[in-house]
Amino acid sequence: MKNLDSLALKTKDGEILVLDQTRLPHHETWVQVESEDHLVSLIQALSIRGAPLIGVVAAVYLSREIERGKSFAELVKTREKLYHARPTAVNLMNALERVIPQAWIQNPSLMTDANREKAKQVGVEVFEEDAALCRRMGEYGASLIQSGQGILTHCNSGGLATSGVGTAFGVLRVAHEQGKKIHVFVDETRPLLQGARLTAWELEKLGIPYTLICDNMASFVMKQGKIQNIFVGCDRIARNGDFANKIGTYGVAVAAYHHQVPFYVVGPRTTLDANAQTGQDIPIEQRDPKEVRRDFSPVSSAVYNPSFDVTDAKYVTAWVLDSGIYREPRFY
Amino acid sequence: MKNLDSLALKTKDGEILVLDQTRLPHHETWVQVESEDHLVSLIQALSIRGAPLIGVVAAVYLSREIERGKSFAELVKTREKLYHARPTAVNLMNALERVIPQAWIQNPSLMTDANREKAKQVGVEVFEEDAALCRRMGEYGASLIQSGQGILTHCNSGGLATSGVGTAFGVLRVAHEQGKKIHVFVDETRPLLQGARLTAWELEKLGIPYTLICDNMASFVMKQGKIQNIFVGCDRIARNGDFANKIGTYGVAVAAYHHQVPFYVVGPRTTLDANAQTGQDIPIEQRDPKEVRRDFSPVSSAVYNPSFDVTDAKYVTAWVLDSGIYREPRFY
Repeated sequence: MKNLDSLALKTKDGEILVLDQTRLPHHETWVQVESEDHLVSLIQALSIRGAPLIGVVAAVYLSREIERGKSFAELVKTREKLYHARPTAVNLMNALERVIPQAWIQNPSLMTDANREKAKQVGVEVFEEDAALCRRMGEYGASLIQSGQGILTHCNSGGLATSGVGTAFGVLRVAHEQGKKIHVFVDETRPLLQGARLTAWELEKLGIPYTLICDNMASFVMKQGKIQNIFVGCDRIARNGDFANKIGTYGVAVAAYHHQVPFYVVGPRTTLDANAQTGQDIPIEQRDPKEVRRDFSPVSSAVYNPSFDVTDAKYVTAWVLDSGIYREPRFY
Repeated sequence: MKNLDSLALKTKDGEILVLDQTRLPHHETWVQVESEDHLVSLIQALSIRGAPLIGVVAAVYLSREIERGKSFAELVKTREKLYHARPTAVNLMNALERVIPQAWIQNPSLMTDANREKAKQVGVEVFEEDAALCRRMGEYGASLIQSGQGILTHCNSGGLATSGVGTAFGVLRVAHEQGKKIHVFVDETRPLLQGARLTAWELEKLGIPYTLICDNMASFVMKQGKIQNIFVGCDRIARNGDFANKIGTYGVAVAAYHHQVPFYVVGPRTTLDANAQTGQDIPIEQRDPKEVRRDFSPVSSAVYNPSFDVTDAKYVTAWVLDSGIYREPRFY
């Protein structure tokens, strides 16, 4: 496998290294992936995260295991474990399906030597493709931005969430590279603070001006006229345009709708789920109450902690895909 | 001064003790107020907080200083310092004005012995009155609640914010005492987590069932039909019904409006500001960026940290005052 190199995922001589995102922004710690169980735990702990990047790392891992000569039975087990690491982002399932399709599992004779050779390459293909898709989304999305605008984003959808410039974040980055003067408002994104920790860190590195806010300030800054555009990423887009994204996205969408601020969702084709008719078909991961409680609240507090929410298509001004800008959800 | 005793404020033999709310829920630490500067710093640090309670403690302190025989010139200085401890909650200004009216400062001969005797009593009066006002608001507000309802609240407006059962929180408490089965959804209330730390703690003590959520989940739980009523407190109500309350309240109001969930603001007469025509006339305190950054985000992050926001009257289903329930802002 050739050496790959992105902001949060590298390969070197067949070893896979991930930047431990739970330790950002204060510590940049690279962790070598030791086993499939280790990778699953890194994904579940959000050490590696972001819908596209989870798909990429899973594909890279599975291709690498083929390269290492794992038996088909072992590969199927590995695929199965990775497939269930997290339930909401469909990129993971889509990427694994590209390395070893379900059809091969049902009919193992399809795992010919030629197919095995092809499957070894898929990890690298998915990695490189994701970077290319990001660039295209970035360019389409940046065309929606005027110089001087305030732009709100939620969670992290940047180089830490993809193998390229990012999805929603990539739009901001491309606009900045084009010389447009933008000011980004970053929702901190409780409970795991991907905005405060990760998006702020990426913006700092790129020198893009930004202001950090608590999630509960987003409506108020819209009311004050500070926000002209909103870009968010996504973890799964249903056929009707409903989409899942980090918890809090729905609230931002409602506030945008109320204040008539354009609200754009940005995602690559790998985030489309043709099997989901509407947002109702998207499973939502519930996570540990401790993520919310931390050391703040009574240890016995009951907590509701959905990691994602679903935003209905009606709140979306346009869907920015790698294939273009869609004012209606007609991209399937 | 007689001994006073509430959840977060006590007097004993003329000494004033406050429960340090920054250390809740894990530590119940009482702090003796040493001086006016100490009290100001306790208020600014939110060791003692809540619009009504800030007014109460300021009045108690100023009355106590009269009792201790401070000169008029010294009292005027004390009043001035306390007056500017925090800018948004008008209860503070209203309470100090009741102990020593501006008219006396302009014309010191009005500080007669009789007036001085009366002023000594005002602290206790304000304390006891606040508890009585809370009870009345609680009873009016509870009449709006049906058994079986899910109720959202934001920040803390309970026994920690008043000398009685609270404002919005008092409504929930009275409904619970009446035997209505309610389930409270508590916004954690970033950045200082008054919901997660304080409201959760009070609900635990009272055995009222609740679920803690992050602020960015409030819209989503409304969409899911889990919320039938919303009650929030307030820091200042303008003549037209606009009101200031803890940052995030506006976002809750917008979401409530969009999802057609009744949204009630609860406040005593001491929170009315006849000099504010609209919400535009309410000063909003900006607080330290470190409250938002904590140890999460890059230390150089620019931060917007308004401690309050203003919610327009149009989002309010009714104002619950100690004098009744108002469907229109006709309480001045």
